[in-house]
Amino acid sequence: MEITFLGTGSGVPSKNRNVSSLALKMLQERDEVWLFDCGEATQHQIMNTTIKPRKITKIFITHMHGDHVLGLPGFLSSRSFQSGESTVELYGPTGLKEFVETTLKTTGTHLNYPLVYKPIKEGIIYQDQDIKVSAKKLKHGIPSYAYKIEEEDKIGPLLPDRLKELGVSPGPIYETIKNQSTTVLPNGTEVHRENVTGSDIPGKRIAICGDTKPVDSLAQWVNGVDVLIHEATFIEADDQLAKDYSHSTAADAARLAKQAQVRYLLLNHISSRYQQNILEEEKTRLQSIFSPLQFVDDFTEFTVK
Amino acid sequence: MEITFLGTGSGVPSKNRNVSSLALKMLQERDEVWLFDCGEATQHQIMNTTIKPRKITKIFITHMHGDHVLGLPGFLSSRSFQSGESTVELYGPTGLKEFVETTLKTTGTHLNYPLVYKPIKEGIIYQDQDIKVSAKKLKHGIPSYAYKIEEEDKIGPLLPDRLKELGVSPGPIYETIKNQSTTVLPNGTEVHRENVTGSDIPGKRIAICGDTKPVDSLAQWVNGVDVLIHEATFIEADDQLAKDYSHSTAADAARLAKQAQVRYLLLNHISSRYQQNILEEEKTRLQSIFSPLQFVDDFTEFTVK
Repeated sequence: MEITFLGTGSGVPSKNRNVSSLALKMLQERDEVWLFDCGEATQHQIMNTTIKPRKITKIFITHMHGDHVLGLPGFLSSRSFQSGESTVELYGPTGLKEFVETTLKTTGTHLNYPLVYKPIKEGIIYQDQDIKVSAKKLKHGIPSYAYKIEEEDKIGPLLPDRLKELGVSPGPIYETIKNQSTTVLPNGTEVHRENVTGSDIPGKRIAICGDTKPVDSLAQWVNGVDVLIHEATFIEADDQLAKDYSHSTAADAARLAKQAQVRYLLLNHISSRYQQNILEEEKTRLQSIFSPLQFVDDFTEFTVK
Repeated sequence: MEITFLGTGSGVPSKNRNVSSLALKMLQERDEVWLFDCGEATQHQIMNTTIKPRKITKIFITHMHGDHVLGLPGFLSSRSFQSGESTVELYGPTGLKEFVETTLKTTGTHLNYPLVYKPIKEGIIYQDQDIKVSAKKLKHGIPSYAYKIEEEDKIGPLLPDRLKELGVSPGPIYETIKNQSTTVLPNGTEVHRENVTGSDIPGKRIAICGDTKPVDSLAQWVNGVDVLIHEATFIEADDQLAKDYSHSTAADAARLAKQAQVRYLLLNHISSRYQQNILEEEKTRLQSIFSPLQFVDDFTEFTVK
C-alpha cells in the first residue's frame, strides 16, 4: 500500500498546498485506489500523478467542510468523461448525498457509472476478505470522522526445508499447499499448511483522521497502527488558535502518536501561515515527544512497509 | 476595461487549460472586477494573477454545466476567509441558487458578506449610470446565455481653444464645466458644455457567450461590439462533433464575427484535443473569414481599447 498526498493545506488553497485529499494506492493488492477527502481541484492534482481516475473505486469523506469535499462533483464528472465505468462508493457523513445529488442535478451531469452512497456511523463500515475499514467520530463542530484501514494478516511464507523433509519438491504444488489448510499428496501424505509456513505476516493498519481537536479516546482506537495520519493545522505556539477553531496542534498529534504507540506519524492539514523553516523547527522540537514524524507536502509519497 | 482569461478549456481541466472563467477588470472605471463563469479551481487560477477576490462584486454564470460553475462555492468561501465583506451579486440561470445554497448549507459554510441572487432572463439584467448588461438565450441543450456589457458613451474632452475664446483659463472651473450642461461664469457668461467639448467617446461594448451551437439571431444582437468572446470547442474539420454536442467550431464564430462586424474576436472553450500548432493553422485559415481573431490561453490579458 502506498499513500500519495494530494492536498495538505487547511481551509483555503495556497500556492504551496492544495486543500485536503489523499490517495491510498492498493494497485498490487487489489488494483484499486481509494481516495480520502476530495477538496476543490483534487482532479487537477491527480493530473500531476500517475493515478488513473477510473481506478478510484471508493471515496471516504472525513467531514463535510468545503475544503474536504468541493472537488467531488468535478472529480466524479471527469472520471465519467475519462471512461470510468466501474461503480464508485461514497462513504461519508450526513449531507454528502444531498450535496452530490443536488450538484449533479443542477449542473445537468450524468455519470456513466453507478454511484453508491454509504452513510457512515461509528464502527465497521466496510469489510471484505482482505481488508476492513472502521470509522470513529472526532470533535470538530460538525460531524468529523477518522477512518482506520486494516488489512487481514497474511499466511506466512512456505518453508522449503520443511517441505523437503516431507518429500515435496518446488513446483505448482507449492501454490496448492499455500492456498488450503490441508493438502493430500499423491503418495497419500497429508500436509498441514500450518506446519510448513512461517509466522503470519501482520496486515498493515492505517488511520486517517479528519479535522479534530484532541479526543481522549482516540489513542486506544488507533493503538499500534503502522501509520497515523493526523491534522496539524497549527504549531504548538498557536495552541489557543487550535482550541478556538476545534483543531489540533502538531504537538497534540505527537502526544497521541506516543500514547498510541504507532509506528509513523504523518502530519497534514497545515495552515499556510507556516513557512517550511518553521515546520522544520517544530519537527525537531517534537521529536522529543514522538519520532518518526513528518510534515507532509502535496505529492509526498509514503510506502506502508 | 481589461479581460483576464482564467480558464479557456472545455469540459474537463487539462494541464494547459483550466475550465471556464474570465475576469472583466474595471479597476480604473469603478474599482471592481466582474467574473464570468467560475469553473472548478478558478480561485486557484486567481492566485496566479493580481486580482483580489474582494474586488469581485458580480459573477455572471452563462450556464449551469459543471465546467462553468463548480468553482463557485470554493471561490465564495475563500473570498470570505480573505476578508471580503462587500456584497456579491450572482447572475445566472435557474438552478444556480439551489446549487450554491445547498452547497453552502451541506458544507456548513457561512459567508461574511451578503450574497444576492439575480435570476436572469433575456433583456437588460443590470444597469447603472455608467454601464448596462443584457442577456440573450443561446442553444446548448440546457439554458445557456450570452452577456453583453455596454458602457454608456462618455462626454468628449474639453477643447481648451474654445474655452480660451470664452475667457476661461485652465483651473478647477474646467471640472465644473465638464460636469454640468451649463455653467455660469463669475462674469455672467453662460458656457454650454456641448459647445466646448469634442465628440462623445463611445462606450466600449463586449459580448461574452456561453456554450452554444450557432444561433441565427445572435449576429444582430452582438452587432458592432468591440470584443466578441465566443466558444470554439472544435475546429472546422470536426464540425460534426460540434453539431453532435451543441457546440460551435472556430469557423462558426468567425462567420458570426464577420456578419456582426465586430472589432475583435477572441475564441475560448477550446477542446484539449488540439495542440497549439493545430490552433495556429486554424487561425491562419480562418483569417480569410474574419480578422483579427485569437485563440486565447489561460492568463491571456486583453485590453479593450
